[in-house]
Amino acid sequence: MVPRYSRQEMASIWQDLNRYRIWFEIEALAAEAMATLGDIPADSARAIREKGGAWIAAMTEADVERIAGIERETRHDVIAFLTWLAEGIGPDSRFVHLGMTSSDVLDTCLAVQLTQATDLLLQGVDAVMAALKRRAIEHRHTPTVGRSHGIHAEPTSFGLKLAGHYAEFARDRERLIAARREIATCAISGAVGTFAHLDPGIEAHVAARLGLAVEPVSTQVIPRDRHAAYFTTLAVIASGIERLATEIRHLQRSEVREAEEFFHPGQKGSSAMPHKRNPVLSENLTGLARLVRGYALPALENVALWHERDISHSSVERVIAPDATIALDFALQRLAGLVKKLTIHPERMAENLESLGGVVHSGEVLLALARAGISREDAYRIIQRNAMATWTTLGKTDARSFRDHLMADPEVAGRISPEAIDAAMDSRSHLARVDQIFTRVFGTD
Amino acid sequence: MVPRYSRQEMASIWQDLNRYRIWFEIEALAAEAMATLGDIPADSARAIREKGGAWIAAMTEADVERIAGIERETRHDVIAFLTWLAEGIGPDSRFVHLGMTSSDVLDTCLAVQLTQATDLLLQGVDAVMAALKRRAIEHRHTPTVGRSHGIHAEPTSFGLKLAGHYAEFARDRERLIAARREIATCAISGAVGTFAHLDPGIEAHVAARLGLAVEPVSTQVIPRDRHAAYFTTLAVIASGIERLATEIRHLQRSEVREAEEFFHPGQKGSSAMPHKRNPVLSENLTGLARLVRGYALPALENVALWHERDISHSSVERVIAPDATIALDFALQRLAGLVKKLTIHPERMAENLESLGGVVHSGEVLLALARAGISREDAYRIIQRNAMATWTTLGKTDARSFRDHLMADPEVAGRISPEAIDAAMDSRSHLARVDQIFTRVFGTD
Amino acid sequence: MVPRYSRQEMASIWQDLNRYRIWFEIEALAAEAMATLGDIPADSARAIREKGGAWIAAMTEADVERIAGIERETRHDVIAFLTWLAEGIGPDSRFVHLGMTSSDVLDTCLAVQLTQATDLLLQGVDAVMAALKRRAIEHRHTPTVGRSHGIHAEPTSFGLKLAGHYAEFARDRERLIAARREIATCAISGAVGTFAHLDPGIEAHVAARLGLAVEPVSTQVIPRDRHAAYFTTLAVIASGIERLATEIRHLQRSEVREAEEFFHPGQKGSSAMPHKRNPVLSENLTGLARLVRGYALPALENVALWHERDISHSSVERVIAPDATIALDFALQRLAGLVKKLTIHPERMAENLESLGGVVHSGEVLLALARAGISREDAYRIIQRNAMATWTTLGKTDARSFRDHLMADPEVAGRISPEAIDAAMDSRSHLARVDQIFTRVFGTD
Amino acid sequence: MVPRYSRQEMASIWQDLNRYRIWFEIEALAAEAMATLGDIPADSARAIREKGGAWIAAMTEADVERIAGIERETRHDVIAFLTWLAEGIGPDSRFVHLGMTSSDVLDTCLAVQLTQATDLLLQGVDAVMAALKRRAIEHRHTPTVGRSHGIHAEPTSFGLKLAGHYAEFARDRERLIAARREIATCAISGAVGTFAHLDPGIEAHVAARLGLAVEPVSTQVIPRDRHAAYFTTLAVIASGIERLATEIRHLQRSEVREAEEFFHPGQKGSSAMPHKRNPVLSENLTGLARLVRGYALPALENVALWHERDISHSSVERVIAPDATIALDFALQRLAGLVKKLTIHPERMAENLESLGGVVHSGEVLLALARAGISREDAYRIIQRNAMATWTTLGKTDARSFRDHLMADPEVAGRISPEAIDAAMDSRSHLARVDQIFTRVFGTD
Repeated sequence: MVPRYSRQEMASIWQDLNRYRIWFEIEALAAEAMATLGDIPADSARAIREKGGAWIAAMTEADVERIAGIERETRHDVIAFLTWLAEGIGPDSRFVHLGMTSSDVLDTCLAVQLTQATDLLLQGVDAVMAALKRRAIEHRHTPTVGRSHGIHAEPTSFGLKLAGHYAEFARDRERLIAARREIATCAISGAVGTFAHLDPGIEAHVAARLGLAVEPVSTQVIPRDRHAAYFTTLAVIASGIERLATEIRHLQRSEVREAEEFFHPGQKGSSAMPHKRNPVLSENLTGLARLVRGYALPALENVALWHERDISHSSVERVIAPDATIALDFALQRLAGLVKKLTIHPERMAENLESLGGVVHSGEVLLALARAGISREDAYRIIQRNAMATWTTLGKTDARSFRDHLMADPEVAGRISPEAIDAAMDSRSHLARVDQIFTRVFGTD
Repeated sequence: MVPRYSRQEMASIWQDLNRYRIWFEIEALAAEAMATLGDIPADSARAIREKGGAWIAAMTEADVERIAGIERETRHDVIAFLTWLAEGIGPDSRFVHLGMTSSDVLDTCLAVQLTQATDLLLQGVDAVMAALKRRAIEHRHTPTVGRSHGIHAEPTSFGLKLAGHYAEFARDRERLIAARREIATCAISGAVGTFAHLDPGIEAHVAARLGLAVEPVSTQVIPRDRHAAYFTTLAVIASGIERLATEIRHLQRSEVREAEEFFHPGQKGSSAMPHKRNPVLSENLTGLARLVRGYALPALENVALWHERDISHSSVERVIAPDATIALDFALQRLAGLVKKLTIHPERMAENLESLGGVVHSGEVLLALARAGISREDAYRIIQRNAMATWTTLGKTDARSFRDHLMADPEVAGRISPEAIDAAMDSRSHLARVDQIFTRVFGTD
Repeated sequence: MVPRYSRQEMASIWQDLNRYRIWFEIEALAAEAMATLGDIPADSARAIREKGGAWIAAMTEADVERIAGIERETRHDVIAFLTWLAEGIGPDSRFVHLGMTSSDVLDTCLAVQLTQATDLLLQGVDAVMAALKRRAIEHRHTPTVGRSHGIHAEPTSFGLKLAGHYAEFARDRERLIAARREIATCAISGAVGTFAHLDPGIEAHVAARLGLAVEPVSTQVIPRDRHAAYFTTLAVIASGIERLATEIRHLQRSEVREAEEFFHPGQKGSSAMPHKRNPVLSENLTGLARLVRGYALPALENVALWHERDISHSSVERVIAPDATIALDFALQRLAGLVKKLTIHPERMAENLESLGGVVHSGEVLLALARAGISREDAYRIIQRNAMATWTTLGKTDARSFRDHLMADPEVAGRISPEAIDAAMDSRSHLARVDQIFTRVFGTD
Repeated sequence: MVPRYSRQEMASIWQDLNRYRIWFEIEALAAEAMATLGDIPADSARAIREKGGAWIAAMTEADVERIAGIERETRHDVIAFLTWLAEGIGPDSRFVHLGMTSSDVLDTCLAVQLTQATDLLLQGVDAVMAALKRRAIEHRHTPTVGRSHGIHAEPTSFGLKLAGHYAEFARDRERLIAARREIATCAISGAVGTFAHLDPGIEAHVAARLGLAVEPVSTQVIPRDRHAAYFTTLAVIASGIERLATEIRHLQRSEVREAEEFFHPGQKGSSAMPHKRNPVLSENLTGLARLVRGYALPALENVALWHERDISHSSVERVIAPDATIALDFALQRLAGLVKKLTIHPERMAENLESLGGVVHSGEVLLALARAGISREDAYRIIQRNAMATWTTLGKTDARSFRDHLMADPEVAGRISPEAIDAAMDSRSHLARVDQIFTRVFGTD
């Protein structure tokens, strides 16, 4: 992922240094288990842990480059690392990786990296949820127009809008926890996964120490349906980010102006048009969502490896594992900040709510007419006629409110009282159950 | 979905008749709840249930066509249905759908249809698992070569291969149950989801009777991240089907011939080449997997609806909800049958296992040399040299087995006994832990 | 594709009857070429054409069902058809399909169907272009605000907006012609494409008569990169439809109201809210675009068939070839009608253009200040300050226009004349080059 | 893209330094055109070119960092660059970028970068084509079995296989040239694309000097359908790479062994199994193809920008423009080398061709029986019976060749001579038209 969209915390998970440290940890843990099982000398396991640990602790970029050099010859990354590691460990290094395959190391390492990454993503989701909850409660009773099809529908509250997004991120949190469980498995099962040269106790030990579950049946590799489930989950979350970003982009439109991204002192919206204040963060999040969706596809295509495994998934994962998690992490943190600092304009919401002459109350009026004994079909026809009349004269000299139109309609007058009409056009009724919904979403605290 | 890939059981879930029945059920249940709450007369609710129920029970294709005709005028499907329904119910029909929006009906109905569909999919997964388990146990100890990169690696058992796929479908089962939970929610919350005209008790009643959970916060629509999670789960499962189908395609290759799809009497493999017996079912499953993957994308793009909702998701779901579930249902049933009737050739597996002159034992020999005190690097070099010599003369007049090459190598001879070499080349060691893995996968029964 | 989104013209291309007619035509043409080459008796070729032609001409749904019955036994669709056809032709039928493979028939038939489909799609693009051109010219000089990031930027003309979309569909037209060329090839090359049993002259004859090019090297199948290029082209066009649909959805927003979809007498926008007039057609087009994009993926995955061919592409194409072309055809026709009947509100455009107090002229003022010798940085700062002051007081009691703010700014006053400011704030300058751009797009007629 | 899959030549196109050089070039060219048109002083344009050119020529990583610092304040990348550039140019810098928008610079720059990238991709395609052509001609008449469904079908030549891939890359070349034309346009049209502050002559000048076409109608941005067409074209090409990579993976399978990737001295195939020689390059290409396909999706979603433009496409393109072109460039170069050095085993091809006892000739025998007057149905049945008998006894003690089975069949004996059977089973007939096909593909030189 380009630095522009990377946070150091997440990026460092995917750097060579972190990967090599995890590789070493897997090898050292495996050696310890082998020693316990009597497969290798206990002294050797200790030497691997101590000398290797010191060697790894002192690792620099120069070492990374040396390993790359060895790989250019062997064309095998794990062998290159083990060759470099052997220099640090000395003769006991012949007990490193004994009976193991590269995949034992690579796949278990990927599991560790993905769990580390997921923990950061969970922090990101939590940050978004916290920001949404705070703003939702702040605007719990701020009236605003609810829109379907981009058209004014009926009143709602701005807090309720945010509560809906909160609930989605709460679902995302559960999904992310499930996705973490999907990929948090360890396989140390050797060539084609038969444990022919490896006691399953080694796997159990490594798994336990790394906080992973044992993969019940691996085929040298951890099956890739797990990773497909993981990356498609990220795509679902990214799509939810896009939904909220799209909402903000809509609210900041010049004609709507109900909310806008915080505009920093010194910020410039356009090189040519100094008046511009654009929802660039939300637009950026929209683009990042597209990227994360795009990464899900190769993950799905990775599932059908040939026989016990092939290596076609590797190039895909070298790219999408960092890129998808870094992009999503960045997006979540950006979104949390955006929501936290979002400038909200309740007065503008009130203006917009009133701007269509009251037609947003047509549904309630429909019920009132029905209650007054008018058939559904007739009531619908009457209201539609008056709403359209209101609508089409908006802002014109002959403009009249929906209420006035209704009152003047011979089919209405006399069949329903002005008071009943007014009651039907009271926005407060629409917010009456907001608290009840908030309890569903945020609990009763 | 084309009839060719549709099972009637699944297809009927998506037919107009089933949809209208569910719509009616939702309206009738809502009316009953309204009556209980005193919102409408109890007699009217009873009339809706009884007259409407009779009207629906007598519904024919002619009625479906009539509703379509009304929709051509109103350009609104739910209004068209309600108009038709009102004819059957009479005056009490003015209490049908009172304060509800179309989405209350449509989204709750989709939830019902998707849960019905998922139950069939679960049956499909169960059928695949049952077939895999039976064949896995049958071939638990059938030796076969494990392959990585399409290249012979080390021995494994054919049952173990199948156990790996079984474990994947067991994960798919869990995913499908989670995905079912994702979409099994009911929303009867009215325009923009505020319950302005509807007591939440109505929603609770409808949900309980339909076996759905209440959607905590809906925005007139049920949020589409749920459906995105659902359809991406189908894509993950489809990819697992492809993995198994790809395995079978490989095994049936002319050069491999370790397994083949059942060939029916009267079946013709090719119009031009009478000798052909092709793995057409597995190839078909591969294509169906691509389709199901493709359907996940529009589901992801559906998440970011505008404001409280727009209708862009509707055309997508009218197509992918039936098409993805029908295709996956068909694929699962086809796969179950394929596995059940798969012709397996253990003798050919044995031949292939031996066909490379014993080099598949190079890993075990490496460990033996290491145990004999040879350094990892030297041992690797020696074995690689002899394996390549074996490999490159395969089938030639100067062909010698890997064992013979090793024995003749001065760096090997004298440092390790022929018995140790033979022990390292005994395939049985590779199957020693199969039972242990089976217990992990299938339990201990 | 569901009937709701199918036009009969396109759907009939993909019906069994059309497919069987094309299959017969291919077989009859091949037989004629074989007769000319002396491979089969001329009388037999004539019998095939005449008897077979009559048999096909009399084909009914009952025949389609009979062929399906034969396929259930042979599990081979082409053999089933040939068996049925043989009944109509009699003994000469043994010269039908001689040396040919099913793929020769299937792939060439698909090419014919796709070219037929593409011709309809081209009509659709033409209809969209004609509608856009007419409305663009009609509104060539209708001022409207141009928006970037959803924020008012600078004035433009409504016709210019449409001209941009016209230019995109003109590109789509070229792409569609190129895509048609991609798939308009014929292969009659026999098993694995070697022409072992078939003179290439047969292929040349069939190709010429069907208006197709000869596939230079086929491998029993026509290579699927052609189809991938085709379906990704449809996805690009669908995305352009979505761009225009999104524009209309924006313009119809309650706060914008610059254009709206034609609302039919009798149409109902919502079952609950009689006032609603929603851009449902544009939303529908947005969803259809997602579907067509989704179909491109399996087409891309179809490319890497195994060796000379496998059959995994077949299930994909049985679904996406009809579904993608039918959906796109429907979308194009719907879009053409939508544009043709779009209700456009120039007066509302004028209102919106003025609604931000004149800040949309900040860019021109920036240039004016620069021309007056103020440095770019200073000018930017001054204008941004005044634009923000205008913006933030919009609709409030202390609201002042951008012009007033500027005039009152001590850094502006005295350095630039009020006349220069007024000149900079004249919208007409923005439309000055519209005609020139129209000439680029529509030519000089 | 990760360094592992990046060639320096391609990567440097996407580095900051190259981008800033192009930005400057666009600004300098625009200034020159403005001077010619009399919009700015000629001396200023000269100063911009000369001082700015020197400033850019001396640019270092420190400057890149300084620009990044300015961007952190202004939150606008082009303004940051212009601020830095102004330091080098001095007072005349106020004539830089006059009336232009950032998009004029950014989009035109992207066009330049994409054309540079495409030129490298074309070199890559050429390298693949050259390698394929050489190996195709080398093995023009090397017999090998053609396979459909992974099952032996009929003989073909290895050169013909490669010719098919050559023809696909030749099509890719045409597609790439068309895709280059799609994105090679220049827009200098100012805010919302009206040329309000910019003479179209400026655009024409910049376009001509940069080798680009003028974008007929831009909307501040170059329309993104162009880029969608571009990136989907890369996806089609990547899928063709996967097809060839898949072929090589199949050919290198242990049971097939007809070709294998060059194995370097010192290379190690597996850390655990020294005998391994895996088709890792082809598998890597398979993974890279998945990545490039994945990048096409966000490009398609980028098309529907809001109104005249939004910025959601930007984050997508900052990632996929480099990543997709770098990955595809790397893949093409890797594939070219792979084909060039591919180890091909004609003797193994001959063995495999004979390995099924002659059933691969069933199609020719079918024709021979038909010529002998046996009905198609009977001939098919007879041959299928004998082929299956041959097939199922392969490698067993009672194995008999297809020819022997046929000769012993009472329905065959006496109706066709042994000579006719032998003629039908002569592989040479299958290669008879290879030269003719080669002429179609490679021309007549």
